[in-house]
Amino acid sequence: MTSPLLDHSPASLPARSYRDAGWHEGELAAVWRQEWVAVGRRTDFPERTIRRRTIGGAEVIVVNDGKVLRAFHNVCRHRGSELCTADTPLGRLISCPYHAWAYAPDGRLMSTAFGTATPDFDRTEHGLLPVHLKIWNDVVFLSAAEEAPEFQTDVGTRTLANWPMESLRTGHRHEAIIQCNWKVFWENYSECLHCPGIHPGLSDMIPVYKLGVMAEAERSDGGAALPALKEGAMTWTEDGQPCGPPFPGLTEAERAEGHRFVTIWPSAYVVAHVDYVRLVRLEPLSPTETRLTAEWLFPEETLAQPGFDASAVARFATQVLNEDAAACEMNQRGLASPAFAAGRLMPQEYEIHAFHQWVLKRLARGGHAP
Amino acid sequence: MTSPLLDHSPASLPARSYRDAGWHEGELAAVWRQEWVAVGRRTDFPERTIRRRTIGGAEVIVVNDGKVLRAFHNVCRHRGSELCTADTPLGRLISCPYHAWAYAPDGRLMSTAFGTATPDFDRTEHGLLPVHLKIWNDVVFLSAAEEAPEFQTDVGTRTLANWPMESLRTGHRHEAIIQCNWKVFWENYSECLHCPGIHPGLSDMIPVYKLGVMAEAERSDGGAALPALKEGAMTWTEDGQPCGPPFPGLTEAERAEGHRFVTIWPSAYVVAHVDYVRLVRLEPLSPTETRLTAEWLFPEETLAQPGFDASAVARFATQVLNEDAAACEMNQRGLASPAFAAGRLMPQEYEIHAFHQWVLKRLARGGHAP
Amino acid sequence: MTSPLLDHSPASLPARSYRDAGWHEGELAAVWRQEWVAVGRRTDFPERTIRRRTIGGAEVIVVNDGKVLRAFHNVCRHRGSELCTADTPLGRLISCPYHAWAYAPDGRLMSTAFGTATPDFDRTEHGLLPVHLKIWNDVVFLSAAEEAPEFQTDVGTRTLANWPMESLRTGHRHEAIIQCNWKVFWENYSECLHCPGIHPGLSDMIPVYKLGVMAEAERSDGGAALPALKEGAMTWTEDGQPCGPPFPGLTEAERAEGHRFVTIWPSAYVVAHVDYVRLVRLEPLSPTETRLTAEWLFPEETLAQPGFDASAVARFATQVLNEDAAACEMNQRGLASPAFAAGRLMPQEYEIHAFHQWVLKRLARGGHAP
Repeated sequence: MTSPLLDHSPASLPARSYRDAGWHEGELAAVWRQEWVAVGRRTDFPERTIRRRTIGGAEVIVVNDGKVLRAFHNVCRHRGSELCTADTPLGRLISCPYHAWAYAPDGRLMSTAFGTATPDFDRTEHGLLPVHLKIWNDVVFLSAAEEAPEFQTDVGTRTLANWPMESLRTGHRHEAIIQCNWKVFWENYSECLHCPGIHPGLSDMIPVYKLGVMAEAERSDGGAALPALKEGAMTWTEDGQPCGPPFPGLTEAERAEGHRFVTIWPSAYVVAHVDYVRLVRLEPLSPTETRLTAEWLFPEETLAQPGFDASAVARFATQVLNEDAAACEMNQRGLASPAFAAGRLMPQEYEIHAFHQWVLKRLARGGHAP
Repeated sequence: MTSPLLDHSPASLPARSYRDAGWHEGELAAVWRQEWVAVGRRTDFPERTIRRRTIGGAEVIVVNDGKVLRAFHNVCRHRGSELCTADTPLGRLISCPYHAWAYAPDGRLMSTAFGTATPDFDRTEHGLLPVHLKIWNDVVFLSAAEEAPEFQTDVGTRTLANWPMESLRTGHRHEAIIQCNWKVFWENYSECLHCPGIHPGLSDMIPVYKLGVMAEAERSDGGAALPALKEGAMTWTEDGQPCGPPFPGLTEAERAEGHRFVTIWPSAYVVAHVDYVRLVRLEPLSPTETRLTAEWLFPEETLAQPGFDASAVARFATQVLNEDAAACEMNQRGLASPAFAAGRLMPQEYEIHAFHQWVLKRLARGGHAP
Repeated sequence: MTSPLLDHSPASLPARSYRDAGWHEGELAAVWRQEWVAVGRRTDFPERTIRRRTIGGAEVIVVNDGKVLRAFHNVCRHRGSELCTADTPLGRLISCPYHAWAYAPDGRLMSTAFGTATPDFDRTEHGLLPVHLKIWNDVVFLSAAEEAPEFQTDVGTRTLANWPMESLRTGHRHEAIIQCNWKVFWENYSECLHCPGIHPGLSDMIPVYKLGVMAEAERSDGGAALPALKEGAMTWTEDGQPCGPPFPGLTEAERAEGHRFVTIWPSAYVVAHVDYVRLVRLEPLSPTETRLTAEWLFPEETLAQPGFDASAVARFATQVLNEDAAACEMNQRGLASPAFAAGRLMPQEYEIHAFHQWVLKRLARGGHAP
């Protein structure tokens, strides 16, 4: 097991990257309107419906024609009217409520209604503006990039293959608007130096967190290996007991892990437990505001248990999320200091460093290099 | 009758022109503080009063000294205090409430009060900053341009000469703040492609609107000429019946028209009917907000009718204005899309195209060319 | 007595300096984060406490370790977290609530907690970011400049040496947010041309103010010298009578003065009377918003008088402050006029002219010259 720790203490991103409106616009364009962004689960987009979503400040629609999911910018090519003013059933055509231009579910412009197009007007050049769409473990991702980017997770061999992602149902939902830049959220997510101080309950549940590290591989204290969860605990619930029958397909090692994190920058992560799965999504609302949406996904049979209370199951992780939100807001307040130029990362913050490189690479690519 | 339709499909203005703060400032300076802007009717400025108004973000006062109406910027030349903090009667002088500098009703600086001017201070150079004023059909227009611009309407031969504009009185008033750029309002005003979908009642009243055109001259369907208003209707009221005695001076043709629109970009239009007149004014509040003020003007004898209900008369056109406002807001929401660069105009949108050229010409003149 | 009056009428600052966000940022950086800024009295910072303050938009902490007062930016050097989320007692160390980096009360970084610093990380380079601190007449001043600037007042020989500043206690406090640029406040403070019109009560109390001047030296009316306060009045209270025993150390001349103003740009002024002292502080909140905090300071024996009502004492000056606030807001509204370029100063506004030069010099020094 080689150590993932950094061998030096690099600088953090410049403080203004967390508050500057221009920098934020650059990130929306170069990161949030380029990369794959999670917008929900496949079941959130039922057959023959149109559903509205926002990615990187762009309003889009997801169209399910009964066979395939497609996504488009929610704007008519005529004079730029909003095309769908609400989630709706899908008819034969998608018709603009302003001047009745009508598009096929695959985006082709079929009619300009009372507008009588002149020869220089080429209907095939005025279809809906397409957005790439991809489904991964039943989660729907969109990309507003010209060319679809590579889909990347940090999952490596730790796949979710043994979890029945397609058959899970959402039993609980938690939404919060955190007064912080979206990068502050990911930085907080990417290290456990803060765990002993910020998350006493979580650090009690996960012994290695008490040491300020995320995993055995980061330890340098020479102590004996610790269990993934505290004695007797099998999952992230208040008493550590599963809330329903464990997933039958998991390996012994997967059961012993206690939790499996999969991260898909910039918008989502999944935490898979032996009995349920948590999907967390982010949406940047402004340089200093981020919306978080967390969903707890359960097997049908768990939800069907008499007296089952999904919100009681959610309590443990909600507490952790709330602690993280408070920490992020505290960090954001400090980053407003005109005297603070940039921070310094500790060796344990290797994932933050990788995240910073990932962001900077995309800003440079998009011509938004600081 | 030659067709006014475009023979090609030109691009619309760039989407950012409808939302960008810098572009909007340019329009305030090059359009709204240059052109003639309607600020009310002559009777709104009674003898021996000072009334406050705003044009293009500039606070101004209109001074009626009993003989002549004059307008000035509402700012003292000393240290820039607001000069009139409210509408007031006019005294002998207009005295600044801060340091008592006093100006004649014609704007000349008459006194610096306790300030003892030195020889380098030339009182004649420190009069109130003048604003041009013009009265047209009893409507007061102001221009904050250095040199008064030409006064232009689209009226051509369709004058209001046969309407008794000076003797009409305001019987009803409707004000709304529309969440749209002011140009979106004028674009919507300038075409009827949207009429069948957005205005079912209006399209029923005005048969040609059902065809998506504003006038017979735009038709290409080869059908027989349609009446201006539906059978039995004479004016824009819910039942089409006049709300009082028709104006006696109208020609037969004018009576048959059903409505006469006169447009004065960027701030006003008048709709003259056989029995009443509607004056609509606009004020841009921000790139995405516009205030609309509509007034229904009636002859004295109409207002004096027992049980006369001006708001009932106003209901028909108010409904149309509300439908337009909702359409404008829908258009504005779509224009926020970062993926939408510019629209394409249909042949029927010739007036929009002319409006765009009008705006661009003024921006270029003012050095605010995009 | 030579006249302080200007011999010409210079231009005022450009109108945009009172409303432009960029100009304001320049002033925060070049004036408010450079100059000495008053943040309270020594007793506001008790032994073994940490107190939060804001100077020029920068959050800072003032640490009293029982021996010395020190100030630092309220930001952790690790990843920029807010260090102190509230006023607190001071423990042995100042510990960041996020990752537990810990600093000595003198700012030295003592521990990076679970973060294991690499050799390239020099702890001595990561102490708290210091802020200069100075105590003047028991008032605590901070400067966020690199090098502490000279401490300047306009006091000259009119010192407060005979007032027992250290032993006074705050008996009344008045806070207001004025909708004006901070410079507008100082301009209003710096002339009395507005006194007759804006402050009838004050002008009655201080006869020379009725002439629109601040002092005898400004007069050019040739009249006989006027008393400092109206007949029978000794201080700024509604009836002119002292609210407690006069300060015993004052000279006869000081008693006759009626009030002694000491000004410390950009943030504070003191008015010393025969019986009490007023300390007024400013904080710029935005280009068009300024917070004013006024405190009435009394000897212990005055406060201990049976039935003593500090708010009744404060009423007279509070009325004046409210009149000034209304005048400042009126001035600010006028300065929004796009037609107003700059004002002209009268000879009596010599102190405003000096203030303008003072501001411009600092902007130029800071590279923020307009």
